[in-house]
Amino acid sequence: MTQEFVHVTYLAHGKPGTDWQKKANGIAVGLTVGSWTDLPEARQAAMQKHLGHVVAAEEIGTDRDGLAQARLTVAYPTINFTPDIPALLTSVFGKLSMDGQIRLVDIDLPTEFASRFPGPKYGIDGIRNALNAYDRPLLMSIFKSVIGYDTATIAEHFYQQALGGVDLVKDDEIFFDETYAPFEKRIEACRLAAERAQQETGKFTLYAANLTGPVTEIFDKARRAVDAGANALLLNVLTYGYDVLHRLAADPQITVPIMAHPALAGAMYPSAQYGVAAPVLLGKLMRIAGADFGLYPSAYGSVALERAETLKIAEALRGEQGTLHRAFPVPSAGIHPGLVPFLYEDLGNDQIINAGGGIHGHPQGSAAGGRAFVAAIDAVVNGKTLTEAASNSPELKTSLDLWGNPSGK
Amino acid sequence: MTQEFVHVTYLAHGKPGTDWQKKANGIAVGLTVGSWTDLPEARQAAMQKHLGHVVAAEEIGTDRDGLAQARLTVAYPTINFTPDIPALLTSVFGKLSMDGQIRLVDIDLPTEFASRFPGPKYGIDGIRNALNAYDRPLLMSIFKSVIGYDTATIAEHFYQQALGGVDLVKDDEIFFDETYAPFEKRIEACRLAAERAQQETGKFTLYAANLTGPVTEIFDKARRAVDAGANALLLNVLTYGYDVLHRLAADPQITVPIMAHPALAGAMYPSAQYGVAAPVLLGKLMRIAGADFGLYPSAYGSVALERAETLKIAEALRGEQGTLHRAFPVPSAGIHPGLVPFLYEDLGNDQIINAGGGIHGHPQGSAAGGRAFVAAIDAVVNGKTLTEAASNSPELKTSLDLWGNPSGK
Ligand SMILES: [Mg+2]
Ligand SMILES: [Mg+2]
Repeated sequence: MTQEFVHVTYLAHGKPGTDWQKKANGIAVGLTVGSWTDLPEARQAAMQKHLGHVVAAEEIGTDRDGLAQARLTVAYPTINFTPDIPALLTSVFGKLSMDGQIRLVDIDLPTEFASRFPGPKYGIDGIRNALNAYDRPLLMSIFKSVIGYDTATIAEHFYQQALGGVDLVKDDEIFFDETYAPFEKRIEACRLAAERAQQETGKFTLYAANLTGPVTEIFDKARRAVDAGANALLLNVLTYGYDVLHRLAADPQITVPIMAHPALAGAMYPSAQYGVAAPVLLGKLMRIAGADFGLYPSAYGSVALERAETLKIAEALRGEQGTLHRAFPVPSAGIHPGLVPFLYEDLGNDQIINAGGGIHGHPQGSAAGGRAFVAAIDAVVNGKTLTEAASNSPELKTSLDLWGNPSGK
Repeated sequence: MTQEFVHVTYLAHGKPGTDWQKKANGIAVGLTVGSWTDLPEARQAAMQKHLGHVVAAEEIGTDRDGLAQARLTVAYPTINFTPDIPALLTSVFGKLSMDGQIRLVDIDLPTEFASRFPGPKYGIDGIRNALNAYDRPLLMSIFKSVIGYDTATIAEHFYQQALGGVDLVKDDEIFFDETYAPFEKRIEACRLAAERAQQETGKFTLYAANLTGPVTEIFDKARRAVDAGANALLLNVLTYGYDVLHRLAADPQITVPIMAHPALAGAMYPSAQYGVAAPVLLGKLMRIAGADFGLYPSAYGSVALERAETLKIAEALRGEQGTLHRAFPVPSAGIHPGLVPFLYEDLGNDQIINAGGGIHGHPQGSAAGGRAFVAAIDAVVNGKTLTEAASNSPELKTSLDLWGNPSGK
């Protein structure tokens, strides 16, 4: 077997004069065989295949505290890991995450190792086929907070959203208490609402129901959701653990796409010194574990991430990665129709325009809010300006008047 | 039913002049009912019990970037959550974690809600009973890296450690590939090694085996471990998700204590602006989810945490918390015998002294390294100095000569 390595890049801060090659070597040895020079020669021969090594250790500057900054890239033999994210993350950033100012900024998975992860079960192509929607960004609406609402009310909300022409509706990620709207009943009711809307619009709307509850029951619950007619599932991947996503995606009975919510990611990606970069956390790891849709803060809305980072997340989700299907990037938070030209310029067709307040806050209601987005998407795809499109869409005109048209297009 | 609230405290940074009361109210409403003033009065009456409210919003200073800092405490009705950590963390810090400079610094769980979590199954008292060891700190040895070692070699390493008089031996947390030392075989072999050592020392040594593999199989695997004679399990809680710990602890068939490893915690706790404070991450949440042992970086070793933070972690693990059992604090990383007086002064008897290099790096080997620690613990418990004790323990003398005796005691 040819030896394969996972390449992990860290941003480290340390005292001026730090020997970065030595630091990187300490990581490469310490997180694999533990110690090397102490080993007898015969043992070294046996352990060679488990030993990590330094790929690069380069000082790149000084921070404002006078600390030197360096990029360190370490290669870890894949035979040290089982092909799952707990093994990978624990090994390459478990203890190390606590060892001074160090940040995990990139992970490069070799092809064979990546192919042992499920990746998206449906991905962009599968979801487009299910919706019969091609050559345009898809549109998703987020349930506004529905804590305490019963099934019938939720289904009516779903219907209003579906009437607006959205492709998908997702549950609020904080929807946990299912006392008033039990999971399977909610799925059935929303499916009926989707069919009712389809009779008016000709368009079917998928519902991504929030998959919650004990991890010991979540796989059965997902299968029951499929039996109840679910057509997508939402998962809070970081609070449940990536391996839950992985095993849902790998389960042949769970025949629906999975939407990965980024809840809690902000506890890990924003610091310059610590944590895990967003393209790893919300891009690469979500993709290999099996997200069909990857949500992340857009560069333009209320909860913003740097544009360069958002482009890297999207690339990680939908770029070439061995044989893995491509996942839909879903830039989110505070999106209104006036932002569609920015999103389209960044990502083109293969993305999901995702809005909550930008749909429900429409003065004529959620259906009108959806229609404003449909008109905006239609405009950018056909090379028209939003202003032009608004002349044929009073709903879009209202949205632009209310929230603005910052691209001026 | 009396309304109960989870109180969550955040450290927020924002522009000078930020209206913190308004900011906190936005969180309290936004993360519960979504919006309030928009709701019709009849709906408000129904939703009142789901509504969060502001407990405190206090500006506390200015950071070096000129941003105002504030402590915000928000009360969330427990009826919005199911009693599990994914629900809790997603709700109170899911999307919010990505919304500017905000850090979760404390969570206060009301008694009834906390009692719906399992907490430690055995805790300090149960573990002391199992070991028949009272009135002193316990001693744990960490396997040095054993990637690629076979079962027999690992058992021999275990035997050497047990001979030194340690109470527990734990697997390395990066031990994932079980090709050469399968889980149950390893557990059986280490148990035999423990019995063999007991014949010489009169003392039994527990083995905490690293519980790894797919989350869909981990519960069965834990039960099989118990059948194979396991007496403790190690779990990488943050990479697997707290709910895995929770369900292991809640499973009546898993009749062994669980050790919570902090791997990946450094991606979340060290920043001053972002993330989750270590006492929440490694103390409170570990305790309620069911950790019998909570590992965290000590204030004195190679991977250090501030002393005040370590004391808060220990308090969260072993202080009064309703009816939950008390968990053992396990300050870790770079511990050698000369540090025992500091640890003892901080935490007294109810802790575990945990060492890897400080045991295996002993010039006379791991058994001698263990005996040096046993002598150091015996000294502090009996009010003797390490220097006095070293006159009767050549192993301790060697350790102090090699690594120092920084307390001067
Ligand atoms: Mg939401
Ligand atoms: Mg270790």
